[in-house]
Amino acid sequence: WFHSSVVLRFGSPPPPHSKFFPAVEGVMLPPGTFNNRVAFITGGGTGLGRAMTTTLSQLGAQCVIASRKLNVLQQTAEEISSQTGNKVHVVQCDVRNPQAVSHCIDEMESLTGLPDVIINNAAGNFVCPSERLSPNGWKAITDIVLNGTAFVTLELGKRLIQNQKGASFLAITTIYAESGSGFVVPSASAKAGVEALYKSLAAEWGRYGHRFNIIQPGPIRTKGAFSRLDPTGTFEETMIRRIPTGRLGKPAEIANLAAYMCSDYATWMSGAVIRFDGGEYVSMAGEFNDLHRVTPDQWKMMEAMIRSTKGS
Amino acid sequence: WFHSSVVLRFGSPPPPHSKFFPAVEGVMLPPGTFNNRVAFITGGGTGLGRAMTTTLSQLGAQCVIASRKLNVLQQTAEEISSQTGNKVHVVQCDVRNPQAVSHCIDEMESLTGLPDVIINNAAGNFVCPSERLSPNGWKAITDIVLNGTAFVTLELGKRLIQNQKGASFLAITTIYAESGSGFVVPSASAKAGVEALYKSLAAEWGRYGHRFNIIQPGPIRTKGAFSRLDPTGTFEETMIRRIPTGRLGKPAEIANLAAYMCSDYATWMSGAVIRFDGGEYVSMAGEFNDLHRVTPDQWKMMEAMIRSTKGS
Amino acid sequence: WFHSSVVLRFGSPPPPHSKFFPAVEGVMLPPGTFNNRVAFITGGGTGLGRAMTTTLSQLGAQCVIASRKLNVLQQTAEEISSQTGNKVHVVQCDVRNPQAVSHCIDEMESLTGLPDVIINNAAGNFVCPSERLSPNGWKAITDIVLNGTAFVTLELGKRLIQNQKGASFLAITTIYAESGSGFVVPSASAKAGVEALYKSLAAEWGRYGHRFNIIQPGPIRTKGAFSRLDPTGTFEETMIRRIPTGRLGKPAEIANLAAYMCSDYATWMSGAVIRFDGGEYVSMAGEFNDLHRVTPDQWKMMEAMIRSTKGS
Amino acid sequence: WFHSSVVLRFGSPPPPHSKFFPAVEGVMLPPGTFNNRVAFITGGGTGLGRAMTTTLSQLGAQCVIASRKLNVLQQTAEEISSQTGNKVHVVQCDVRNPQAVSHCIDEMESLTGLPDVIINNAAGNFVCPSERLSPNGWKAITDIVLNGTAFVTLELGKRLIQNQKGASFLAITTIYAESGSGFVVPSASAKAGVEALYKSLAAEWGRYGHRFNIIQPGPIRTKGAFSRLDPTGTFEETMIRRIPTGRLGKPAEIANLAAYMCSDYATWMSGAVIRFDGGEYVSMAGEFNDLHRVTPDQWKMMEAMIRSTKGS
Ligand SMILES: NC(=O)c1ccc[n+]([C@@H]2O[C@H](COP(=O)([O-])OP(=O)(O)OC[C@H]3O[C@@H](n4cnc5c(N)ncnc54)[C@H](OP(=O)(O)O)[C@@H]3O)[C@@H](O)[C@H]2O)c1
Ligand SMILES: NC(=O)c1ccc[n+]([C@@H]2O[C@H](COP(=O)([O-])OP(=O)(O)OC[C@H]3O[C@@H](n4cnc5c(N)ncnc54)[C@H](OP(=O)(O)O)[C@@H]3O)[C@@H](O)[C@H]2O)c1
Ligand SMILES: NC(=O)c1ccc[n+]([C@@H]2O[C@H](COP(=O)([O-])OP(=O)(O)OC[C@H]3O[C@@H](n4cnc5c(N)ncnc54)[C@H](OP(=O)(O)O)[C@@H]3O)[C@@H](O)[C@H]2O)c1
Ligand SMILES: NC(=O)c1ccc[n+]([C@@H]2O[C@H](COP(=O)([O-])OP(=O)(O)OC[C@H]3O[C@@H](n4cnc5c(N)ncnc54)[C@H](OP(=O)(O)O)[C@@H]3O)[C@@H](O)[C@H]2O)c1
Repeated sequence: WFHSSVVLRFGSPPPPHSKFFPAVEGVMLPPGTFNNRVAFITGGGTGLGRAMTTTLSQLGAQCVIASRKLNVLQQTAEEISSQTGNKVHVVQCDVRNPQAVSHCIDEMESLTGLPDVIINNAAGNFVCPSERLSPNGWKAITDIVLNGTAFVTLELGKRLIQNQKGASFLAITTIYAESGSGFVVPSASAKAGVEALYKSLAAEWGRYGHRFNIIQPGPIRTKGAFSRLDPTGTFEETMIRRIPTGRLGKPAEIANLAAYMCSDYATWMSGAVIRFDGGEYVSMAGEFNDLHRVTPDQWKMMEAMIRSTKGS
Repeated sequence: WFHSSVVLRFGSPPPPHSKFFPAVEGVMLPPGTFNNRVAFITGGGTGLGRAMTTTLSQLGAQCVIASRKLNVLQQTAEEISSQTGNKVHVVQCDVRNPQAVSHCIDEMESLTGLPDVIINNAAGNFVCPSERLSPNGWKAITDIVLNGTAFVTLELGKRLIQNQKGASFLAITTIYAESGSGFVVPSASAKAGVEALYKSLAAEWGRYGHRFNIIQPGPIRTKGAFSRLDPTGTFEETMIRRIPTGRLGKPAEIANLAAYMCSDYATWMSGAVIRFDGGEYVSMAGEFNDLHRVTPDQWKMMEAMIRSTKGS
Repeated sequence: WFHSSVVLRFGSPPPPHSKFFPAVEGVMLPPGTFNNRVAFITGGGTGLGRAMTTTLSQLGAQCVIASRKLNVLQQTAEEISSQTGNKVHVVQCDVRNPQAVSHCIDEMESLTGLPDVIINNAAGNFVCPSERLSPNGWKAITDIVLNGTAFVTLELGKRLIQNQKGASFLAITTIYAESGSGFVVPSASAKAGVEALYKSLAAEWGRYGHRFNIIQPGPIRTKGAFSRLDPTGTFEETMIRRIPTGRLGKPAEIANLAAYMCSDYATWMSGAVIRFDGGEYVSMAGEFNDLHRVTPDQWKMMEAMIRSTKGS
Repeated sequence: WFHSSVVLRFGSPPPPHSKFFPAVEGVMLPPGTFNNRVAFITGGGTGLGRAMTTTLSQLGAQCVIASRKLNVLQQTAEEISSQTGNKVHVVQCDVRNPQAVSHCIDEMESLTGLPDVIINNAAGNFVCPSERLSPNGWKAITDIVLNGTAFVTLELGKRLIQNQKGASFLAITTIYAESGSGFVVPSASAKAGVEALYKSLAAEWGRYGHRFNIIQPGPIRTKGAFSRLDPTGTFEETMIRRIPTGRLGKPAEIANLAAYMCSDYATWMSGAVIRFDGGEYVSMAGEFNDLHRVTPDQWKMMEAMIRSTKGS
């Protein structure tokens, strides 16, 4: 019956209502908002991390980006610096390794001093039926996402506390951290762990001048995420169809939100978890949302049937 | 691609894995668990309310059921009493009306005294696009569900407190109270209100000896619910398909859970919200759960594509 | 033991770490962000509503504020207009009354046309033990907060849909909407209802060009809220003590967040619930957060005891 | 003002309202409920794990308990077997080690075959300011709680799927998994991860006949937990004071709930998260719950002040 209209062709045009929700990709905050601030972004060489770095750099921050691939970091740093005129530093670091994290922060300290803004954005993920996951497959993801975030956060926290310096921490998780999701189970578990870590420290470390907040992005096309989550490209259609705003997000949109959350405009925000997903989560989770497929004529018929029902 | 298998025929057989999850409909708690207890159940004449009344009565409770249709209540009461040997009282009551609620409780006081167990189960609901909802349509649902529950709960609470009598309160809400859902918006809003009411009182009225808990049922076929939520019967297929346990719930299963929660085995449970839905909620909410449609061969192909991806 | 330090004197200075979290009260978004936009704010004459109106007006919006007290609205409108140079319109409206809401929107339509931004901010609240609440006391709050929000939202939604006009809706709820709270039970229930309403419509009405989001503020001193929630002023100390950022929020901080959420920078945000509370919620909710009272010497002792524990 | 009554003496008697909430420690389910079933319980030698094992054994299950200390396991197994007449097997296993987990399950397979019930209960925890946590301290907890649970669950899941055998999984987490909590941060993060793991698999593995549910216990005195979370014993007073039911929980109460959730009475429960905490969580989280300290006379004064307030 109302299932007949489900199948969308691959590459179908965006749903018409997406025109109500145009992406604004310019920088939102006032120029200079991050002057004299240092921002540290893990995974800042690619995807969303790169977009956040670009925005913070445009707003005056000295950025330090860290991940495993030094050449990727260097190229990104140069491109951003030449665009914004502000220095972007690079430090090679595998966040799974506590020593590497410690060395990375040593290096940052000598380059820029301790940061005012920390964005834990590095992650790994791939789709896989859970019965095919080995212990190593499990650890490949959770070691980066949960342990990596913890090592970076705890090490920086300790040093900031010792130096009596305040800071704003941001973690990038995902909409399925809360609900869980099949087929990305190590990521779901690790991201949920990151959220608890951040909510816990928001409560514990406020007295040291630290804030901790979270963005849960919905689907935003980046090579890193989409090549491992939707290698065939077919799943994207399903997602766009159920996103109420009718489109994927843009890296620059996340970057504006992230910059706000890390800025002094948000000094009263701590322990917050902001879902930013075009409405996808509520649209999936609500039991009767599939009824959007019912046509006006079918509604008339259904209303008549409901009205004629007597009793329980 | 993997959308092709979506459409299920109407009346298709239950999915094979439902055999792992057979419903046990016998009474779970030890006989006599509710001896010398009085239970008050709104909407106890039909559907889930009737099932909970039956179970409590079998376990020794004196039950009082209340709703608008006296004849329905009376027939149910007789049928249950004759089955269990324990008296089921009936009181006509429209919970939307505070005076009616007060009279109803007066009547109960003279019949049985104040109750030990209170189940707020009465509700109304129908599917409707929100742009077709009038203020009266909105109030038709919220007045029963939210105000009705509040009037019953506050009036009983006051009298119990005055009499220094403890009690266990249970409210029946729904899985979409948390997420919201389109097309059942007054119900979603009112049920969310009920949950906040109960969590609030769990904290506030413990010192008077009261506990407050909530069950969020998933889909359980009752005439009252299904005739107004799925009048054509087509939606049921969609639900069964996405319920991990492969079937709808049974009224007797809710009744066993409810009896447990209201019994002395659960005196340490308060402020709890128990989702009981065959797994439907997590299945809908998780972003990648649709991948259960991917076949083993497709997985192999996808894995190869993911492995061959380099960088981000 | 570590309880001894609990009692704070009335009027004690802000905790020292509040210096890390200075409030920035200037307008955040680029000038003109709301040029040619119409914003409708209920309860816009006072408190947070007034602050949000001021910010939107400064950013170029034509604002329409509505509540019961016409003289309050008029004075606010004049003050804001003269400050920002942009017209602020006033419409008297009691949101509890669907006819009044309909007339109010008629009036707005003739003044400005249908709005692009709708902020449901009007509310009532007072602290009260629930056993002292009458049905009228219950309705005094829920009729404004839940029904009022629904009437405004549904009526505007219908007209916007008919006119094929997109819009961004924002509701102001509270941090205890999720957890519930004793002593403000009608407010907790009604605000939870508002959240479900908004999450539901975020899913249902995206296809009509509408977004729906929520701010849950923590404590921000306004006459309306504080005179009815903390009439003696003693509770404020308790709150500041447990807020990790060491201070109350400022209306201008909410206004910047609200303006962002309603702006085109956030067109991909829908169904989001943003807690903005200085970290109070996570600080209250976390079971072991009280241990911040343990002194370093006591920690040493506790660590020694823990280390010496053998087995389980 | 109302802070004066905060300090409770150590060893003060339970609050009077705890008499309304007596713990029932007898077994709840019908005898033989678990006849011919095999249950696997990690950490089954002590505390809550021991209590759950006892109850399942009394109900007819063949139990297998596993943890690091073989002698503790053996003593427990003998004591339970001699009490219930049903065999309790022991297998030494450090859940942090995937090989050990695999060997442990090999051993179980030869002893009893694959289990019908799996309870992931093993955990570690201690209170500690997060700035004192080393990477090893972090891993000491998360390796047991998150990785250990994942290794056990994934390994058993794979084998059960291969054998087309259904099973019911239960994980024991904690009330602060959701909110986070300072001073127990690795535990909070790891337990949140476990919850996401279980919700994810509830959605993904239903089709293989598996259910996944969670209990979040509040404080229940066990040597393992209390010696590391409240070594001085002073914190217990604080907890009891804020628990609405006025007392700690009992291991036998958790055991009855766990047995229900793993039994066929709950075959329709999957993806559920049950808070079982005497109401502590809602009591902590609700912003105005501290007002329970306000005396009736103070309420009268406050009401008069509120009534006399005019406007906003
Ligand atoms: N795009 C989406 O739709 C989406 C949705 C929800 C959440 N997210 C989250 O958004 C964040 C960014 O993702 P993205 O889409 O931008 O993908 P991405 O480009 O693949 O970003 C991941 C980054 O993490 C770095 N990284 C991986 N392992 C690392 C390690 N061991 N040590 C240090 N750095 C490491 C990578 O750099 P190297 O390879 O150089 O190490 C890479 O720059 C992630 O947290 C992701 O979970 C994305
Ligand atoms: N079945 C499901 O799938 C499902 C799922 C989620 C939640 N629930 C919830 O489960 C509960 C029971 O539903 P059900 O499926 O058993 O449907 P039902 O048979 O229609 O039960 C509703 C009951 O409420 C009573 N009621 C309605 N308006 C009333 C009023 N103004 N005053 C007093 N009583 C009133 C009705 O009796 P009168 O007509 O005699 O007044 C009826 O007995 C409801 O709270 C429902 O929201 C059900
Ligand atoms: N301040 C806080 O700490 C705090 C914390 C959490 C949430 N909030 C929320 O923030 C919002 C603003 O609160 P506030 O602190 O700014 O307090 P406020 O100044 O008292 O604002 C409430 C506004 O609602 C209007 N209102 C009340 N009843 C109405 C009705 N029947 N019809 C139309 N308008 C009505 C009032 O105007 P009239 O009297 O002219 O009708 C008033 O302007 C509320 O939703 C509140 O729940 C505030
Ligand atoms: N008691 C409470 O108040 C409370 C509250 C919330 C949650 N919980 C949870 O309830 C569960 C039981 O706690 P409990 O209070 O009963 O404490 P417990 O007696 O200390 O139980 C923990 C068990 O885990 C086992 N274990 C620890 N590390 C292990 C490893 N690496 N491999 C295998 N087994 C290991 C221990 O046995 P071995 O030492 O022999 O390995 C022990 O039997 C835990 O998940 C805990 O987080 C308890």
